[in-house]
Amino acid sequence: MEKTRYQQGVDIIKEYTLTDNKEIGTHMNIVDEFKELAPDLESYIVEFAFGDIYSREGLTNHQRTIATISSLVTVGTEPQLELHINTGLTIGLTPNEIVGTVMHLIPYTGFPRVLNALKVVKKVFAQRNVKIKDLEMQPN
Amino acid sequence: MEKTRYQQGVDIIKEYTLTDNKEIGTHMNIVDEFKELAPDLESYIVEFAFGDIYSREGLTNHQRTIATISSLVTVGTEPQLELHINTGLTIGLTPNEIVGTVMHLIPYTGFPRVLNALKVVKKVFAQRNVKIKDLEMQPN
Amino acid sequence: MEKTRYQQGVDIIKEYTLTDNKEIGTHMNIVDEFKELAPDLESYIVEFAFGDIYSREGLTNHQRTIATISSLVTVGTEPQLELHINTGLTIGLTPNEIVGTVMHLIPYTGFPRVLNALKVVKKVFAQRNVKIKDLEMQPN
Amino acid sequence: MEKTRYQQGVDIIKEYTLTDNKEIGTHMNIVDEFKELAPDLESYIVEFAFGDIYSREGLTNHQRTIATISSLVTVGTEPQLELHINTGLTIGLTPNEIVGTVMHLIPYTGFPRVLNALKVVKKVFAQRNVKIKDLEMQPN
Amino acid sequence: MEKTRYQQGVDIIKEYTLTDNKEIGTHMNIVDEFKELAPDLESYIVEFAFGDIYSREGLTNHQRTIATISSLVTVGTEPQLELHINTGLTIGLTPNEIVGTVMHLIPYTGFPRVLNALKVVKKVFAQRNVKIKDLEMQPN
Amino acid sequence: MEKTRYQQGVDIIKEYTLTDNKEIGTHMNIVDEFKELAPDLESYIVEFAFGDIYSREGLTNHQRTIATISSLVTVGTEPQLELHINTGLTIGLTPNEIVGTVMHLIPYTGFPRVLNALKVVKKVFAQRNVKIKDLEMQPN
Repeated sequence: MEKTRYQQGVDIIKEYTLTDNKEIGTHMNIVDEFKELAPDLESYIVEFAFGDIYSREGLTNHQRTIATISSLVTVGTEPQLELHINTGLTIGLTPNEIVGTVMHLIPYTGFPRVLNALKVVKKVFAQRNVKIKDLEMQPN
Repeated sequence: MEKTRYQQGVDIIKEYTLTDNKEIGTHMNIVDEFKELAPDLESYIVEFAFGDIYSREGLTNHQRTIATISSLVTVGTEPQLELHINTGLTIGLTPNEIVGTVMHLIPYTGFPRVLNALKVVKKVFAQRNVKIKDLEMQPN
Repeated sequence: MEKTRYQQGVDIIKEYTLTDNKEIGTHMNIVDEFKELAPDLESYIVEFAFGDIYSREGLTNHQRTIATISSLVTVGTEPQLELHINTGLTIGLTPNEIVGTVMHLIPYTGFPRVLNALKVVKKVFAQRNVKIKDLEMQPN
Repeated sequence: MEKTRYQQGVDIIKEYTLTDNKEIGTHMNIVDEFKELAPDLESYIVEFAFGDIYSREGLTNHQRTIATISSLVTVGTEPQLELHINTGLTIGLTPNEIVGTVMHLIPYTGFPRVLNALKVVKKVFAQRNVKIKDLEMQPN
Repeated sequence: MEKTRYQQGVDIIKEYTLTDNKEIGTHMNIVDEFKELAPDLESYIVEFAFGDIYSREGLTNHQRTIATISSLVTVGTEPQLELHINTGLTIGLTPNEIVGTVMHLIPYTGFPRVLNALKVVKKVFAQRNVKIKDLEMQPN
Repeated sequence: MEKTRYQQGVDIIKEYTLTDNKEIGTHMNIVDEFKELAPDLESYIVEFAFGDIYSREGLTNHQRTIATISSLVTVGTEPQLELHINTGLTIGLTPNEIVGTVMHLIPYTGFPRVLNALKVVKKVFAQRNVKIKDLEMQPN
């Protein structure tokens, strides 16, 4: 039996956000935050953003998260950037890849957006206890 | 002997842009276009953007190009998007990954930027003779 | 029997875009343009953008189009602006209301975005044969 | 006798911002905040933004505020968004229409800007004591 | 007798745009282009943008134009950028200062916006017959 | 002996940021803040942004800072704006010229970005003890 769009979306959100750390937000917290104000938001985020868009074939989870982070750095929406740096770590991007993605954008979006994004990266790495030695260079 | 930043940059530009198709632009065409107006541009693009930034360890060429395309879709600078969809194909992103990256950004940057980007993708695929059957879904 | 999201979306798209003038584009033209490149786009535009978002209660068609045009003027995505100035006329916004919306944004987004938007308005009004006398001021 | 541009602007600002709640900011607070730094700002906001632009015929107060909110959501300037969600309530937009306008922009500006805007909406509704039951759906 | 805001604005527009070359657009062409569609635009551009804002003390014409060009490069509104590169030349910015301003923004807005702006600079310099030898470096 | 790019960059950073006030941040604080996370940032900021871009001939320090501030106001990146309003004061822009630059952008970027920038200006002026009487108008 095929999964519903909602179930498909919930499964993907779990895959991207489930950690032992209760303090790390997930997309379900956002849904809860606006449950009364915008009850339809749950369907749009779970069914459309995750059930439809994140369920598309063609990209790996790593690639999806690099694309997401790059778009969020470029417009500078920091709360969402924080969430997706977290999802990046959860689905297995290395700290090196996250910092590398942000730094790579310097020629495209300029230093100011990149510096503000690095501040968010630093906050999330501290919160997740990502050690700096994890940043040692790996072969390309 | 260590390569100069300039030589390092030129080598990477070649890696990202060298094809048999003479009509496809490269970053060196941009440098030529503004040789008289802004002669220093050559150094900034070759030495800084490619010699420094593209030479950083931590990301693969595929990841770098996904990050680049995502940033360019988000601000909507189409001439550069065209160039980097081309570099994406040249360094081996599949057509599927390029379309997938653009489509993935719908929840983050909205439909208008994505539709304008898809028009550029379509143009480049036609120019590069990328067949639609290349777009058949592959396992994720 | 409840309509499917797809049928709901198609009905709303017709409501916003059906005119006697065959030359005026609709969202279905966009879907067709990218049918091979991004076949899922049809579902995202018809089911999500129209079946879900445009189907929400709480705003009239006029209010929805004013919100849409205002967002598109602000980011400057002109092909979509052209389409939605057309939908504005089709669902019954007066020429006065369309020009009024664009002009109202001067203090918020500055003159450059507004001037570029007015050029699009002028093009659409010519194409739709909207007479300038239609612009006579009405009581507020 | 015709009103001066200044008087015209002040009258419109009052219409958009006069409430019994002393804690809600108005455009005159902004003028005061920068009185010494930029004394001309008063004339530009009162005479130009309100005396000229808000005084144009062609849009109702409701339509003007929908256009304003949509533009501010799209660029993400939150202090001004807070002010104009307040003006929206003051001139009689229903809570439903305000939330509806913000939600409608998901396909155009993406989820991140909309989520950040909803947070501002929630703050203003709490401050103004707008009850959630006010959000019950009304006929379109 | 004090000049009216309109006369003040017209005088400044002339100062910024009057050349022997009939083909170079001025702000009055924009006013004419939208005379029927948005008759009030004339007052907003002449009286507010030039009569009020350009008439402020505190900046020289050179400084005003550097600020204007920098803002337009950053958002990428090219028709207005073309006009203000022209006004820059007319009020006496050297070609060197115009190119220098655009190039200076690379770290702040990234290469894509700067490259698109340089294309506009090149077009205007050709149209105004600005010789490349004019670009020889002067003492800082 | 020619200075290295690094030494050239450090010298310019000092010129733009050296004051007696220890509490005012400089670009070297940013470099330190991200020393472990992104050790290459030092080279990119010192060697590229300052050693290359700020070292270009063709603009005075005043002109460079006006261009920088104008770009930062336009995208709304406030931490960097704060830093560059400080550098503006340090290299000798008058308070009048700084406020004048920000106010001049109203027609180009709209009131919201300008108001948010003025708040940053006010904060920096208070921190640097810039007296309002310094704002008295000087001859243009």
